[in-house]
Amino acid sequence: MNYRMIAYIIGHIVRVEGILMTLPLVCALVYGEGSWLAFLIPITLSLLVGTLLTIRKNENTQIYAKEGFVIVALSWIIMSVIGAVPFVLDGCIPSFVNAFFETVSGFTTTGATILTDVEALDHSMLLWRSFTHWIGGMGVLVFVMAILPQSDTRSVKLMHIMRAEVPGPKVGKLVSKISRTARIMYGIYIVMTLIEAILLIFGGMPVFDSILNSFATAGTGGFGIKSASIAAYDSAYVDYVIGVFMILFGINFNLYYFIIIGQGLQALKSEELRWYGAIAAVSIVLISFDIYNIYGGVGESVRYAFFQVASIVTTTGFATADFNTWPVLSQTILVLLMFCGACAGSTAGGIKVGRIILLVKTGLREIKYMLHPRAVIAVNVEGKSVEREVIRGATSYVIVYIMLYAASFFCLTFAEECDLITGFTAVAATINNVGPGLGAVGPAGSFAGFTKFTKLLLSFVMLAGRLEIFPMIMLLAPSTWRRR
Amino acid sequence: MNYRMIAYIIGHIVRVEGILMTLPLVCALVYGEGSWLAFLIPITLSLLVGTLLTIRKNENTQIYAKEGFVIVALSWIIMSVIGAVPFVLDGCIPSFVNAFFETVSGFTTTGATILTDVEALDHSMLLWRSFTHWIGGMGVLVFVMAILPQSDTRSVKLMHIMRAEVPGPKVGKLVSKISRTARIMYGIYIVMTLIEAILLIFGGMPVFDSILNSFATAGTGGFGIKSASIAAYDSAYVDYVIGVFMILFGINFNLYYFIIIGQGLQALKSEELRWYGAIAAVSIVLISFDIYNIYGGVGESVRYAFFQVASIVTTTGFATADFNTWPVLSQTILVLLMFCGACAGSTAGGIKVGRIILLVKTGLREIKYMLHPRAVIAVNVEGKSVEREVIRGATSYVIVYIMLYAASFFCLTFAEECDLITGFTAVAATINNVGPGLGAVGPAGSFAGFTKFTKLLLSFVMLAGRLEIFPMIMLLAPSTWRRR
Repeated sequence: MNYRMIAYIIGHIVRVEGILMTLPLVCALVYGEGSWLAFLIPITLSLLVGTLLTIRKNENTQIYAKEGFVIVALSWIIMSVIGAVPFVLDGCIPSFVNAFFETVSGFTTTGATILTDVEALDHSMLLWRSFTHWIGGMGVLVFVMAILPQSDTRSVKLMHIMRAEVPGPKVGKLVSKISRTARIMYGIYIVMTLIEAILLIFGGMPVFDSILNSFATAGTGGFGIKSASIAAYDSAYVDYVIGVFMILFGINFNLYYFIIIGQGLQALKSEELRWYGAIAAVSIVLISFDIYNIYGGVGESVRYAFFQVASIVTTTGFATADFNTWPVLSQTILVLLMFCGACAGSTAGGIKVGRIILLVKTGLREIKYMLHPRAVIAVNVEGKSVEREVIRGATSYVIVYIMLYAASFFCLTFAEECDLITGFTAVAATINNVGPGLGAVGPAGSFAGFTKFTKLLLSFVMLAGRLEIFPMIMLLAPSTWRRR
Repeated sequence: MNYRMIAYIIGHIVRVEGILMTLPLVCALVYGEGSWLAFLIPITLSLLVGTLLTIRKNENTQIYAKEGFVIVALSWIIMSVIGAVPFVLDGCIPSFVNAFFETVSGFTTTGATILTDVEALDHSMLLWRSFTHWIGGMGVLVFVMAILPQSDTRSVKLMHIMRAEVPGPKVGKLVSKISRTARIMYGIYIVMTLIEAILLIFGGMPVFDSILNSFATAGTGGFGIKSASIAAYDSAYVDYVIGVFMILFGINFNLYYFIIIGQGLQALKSEELRWYGAIAAVSIVLISFDIYNIYGGVGESVRYAFFQVASIVTTTGFATADFNTWPVLSQTILVLLMFCGACAGSTAGGIKVGRIILLVKTGLREIKYMLHPRAVIAVNVEGKSVEREVIRGATSYVIVYIMLYAASFFCLTFAEECDLITGFTAVAATINNVGPGLGAVGPAGSFAGFTKFTKLLLSFVMLAGRLEIFPMIMLLAPSTWRRR
């Protein structure tokens, strides 16, 4: 284990976080809020520690898959610990466990909250809270790679880190250099966030709210800055703008790159994109019919169905309606969508449409195998035969996912006296980085009532969900730390 | 497709069912019940049709995997249609859909019932209902293979049929001849059923009840012949006898064969057996603690925990307590056990412990692969390296299982206005052949309230669960019926 290199990269992460925290610091100063000190202290410490850890150049920059996983897992935990400090110092979330849960929920773009009165928070705290979504959406390490000087990363096998942080069954580079790929992705990310914010301002939403809601949309996070979430704006225009952008941020970012370089038509042929569109469209139609009686009009039904489907399939978790009160068909569709998630290579969570396609086709192949046991049958996705290793990766991922799910669900009910639906969907909402579940953790509820044990458990589950499980397991596996 | 051969084997099945139905017929005559006619008519027709279909010898006895699946799927559907006739003719279940659901539930050893007052049934009807469990537990085709004259089966690839009907990731023959294997298995089955019945009679249970409850235990079916299920006997002795036999019938029958031939110690080393025991033991201990406050004593808590765990892990579904009212931890454990199921090669449903072991180990291997992508890492079960095809089969099975589960759950909520828990566990209880679920389909409820659509849907799900999905899918797949 190359400890020096791990410390070196984590040092960069810590320093970057310190720099990113200056945004809420400035916000506190602009609004004249006393919370500026709650940011200044962690900023100073982060910069200090970060600089100390990165001051010494390493001779051995070689890292392997193992180090990649450990770096990613540790980075996310340390980021969350530091990110929780302002909430505690400010006193708006006095309990460190609660603040940690909230920050993990932010960085992992889950959006599950322990706050029962979010509107009581200062502007700067709200900004930091929503900003964590934006930072976590694209990935912190991807960000570090984008800004690190090339001389630092020349000989580092960054692919090991990238693969561990970017979700999906198969991670590809857009261009030969990873750092350039990261910069292109961040460019697209920033531009899209800006466009959304401008559209929201144009629709009459306050500038501050527009920026924060765009952060939460871009990361497909879902922290609301009003107790009623997006329903607070009570505007069809806002619903549709945010709804459309949630869908857009659920698309594989590579597709935007292809559009930029003029291969847009090529991009639209993506099998994953078409399935993603079809799943969302069918869900919207079915739910619109199902909730027609509640809203009593086509326009309203479609509006609420569209927003909730967009919110859940992209695992954002914004709410304009309490779907806890919707009929069972709508609830079932939403729960299934939680697991499905959006496209690989987007900011969304869940199992990912790309992986679902792969699994469904593998399942169908098995049926063919049953009939012709000796045949060699390929699984074709995006017009290409999928390598055996990729299929094995996707099926094993789902198995490990189910194991983690069952274990978490089991541990949760060990510590809680909740009903089954609350327990089941609390895990579903965190492992898939959605945010709200059903029952006590529904859109109108919160995670505040859980014990500290459960909050830490679900923090682990959120991190595991965001990092696609393996980095978090590696961190705990004794074999990772054993010397060869 | 060798239609003649399919008709020939189905003819045997129909004839055998006619013969088996004479048991309830005799029962009706003994008890002087008017329901004898309800059996005589289908018996006559079955024997007639069965004889007609089997009268002509086939020249081409060659069958392939495809025919194997079709034979198994069709046999089970036709058996259930015929088996439903007495209930309709007698009038105790006037609706054919209800009678079909009840019979499918019987043959698939599910034990889900649409009856709200089971005690109103005649002795002969109760006998037939419980007898279907016993017949379905070991498999009808296995039975036919056991009794068919050797000259008929000499050149038939019976393995294709056996593989489609006997559950588990890998089906092996005990002895070189399949028909002899089938006869040994049935021998063990009959002897164990008799021992249980004798022990129950010894404990003071009426002879009729003892036999019927033994049928339902042996098949791990779970139809109760009292409205209160096994709780009606209110006897710790009965609970423990039935509990122990449920556990025993959940063990791979091969193990009993090894014990018979004096290799008992060898058999006890089975990895699946040890996991099965460990899962059951841990569940019993945890639930005993969890329900301690309800029953207020160690003895009572252990008694109820033991019985429910035995009942659910073996997917029998007998009840001595309404676990709908138990705490959430106990409910969660029971729901997880529903999916787990007992050993492969037993009469139990669910995913099977053997497959779970394989999946867990495959998941753990994936973690190792992540660290050493180029290593060749074997999955070892029972001390042997598992072939890649078997692993692929198990993982694909779970994927297809999840697809079927999600689709069924979705279709069910389409037709029903139930709560999520009822919908979710109604599918869990049928696909795993358990019987009762939670909510409206809990131990104190029934499936009577569902629409006809849902009853047919769940009948399909029960058959798919019992036959491990593929035969039922093959039956519907257009490619099965296409000429080459």
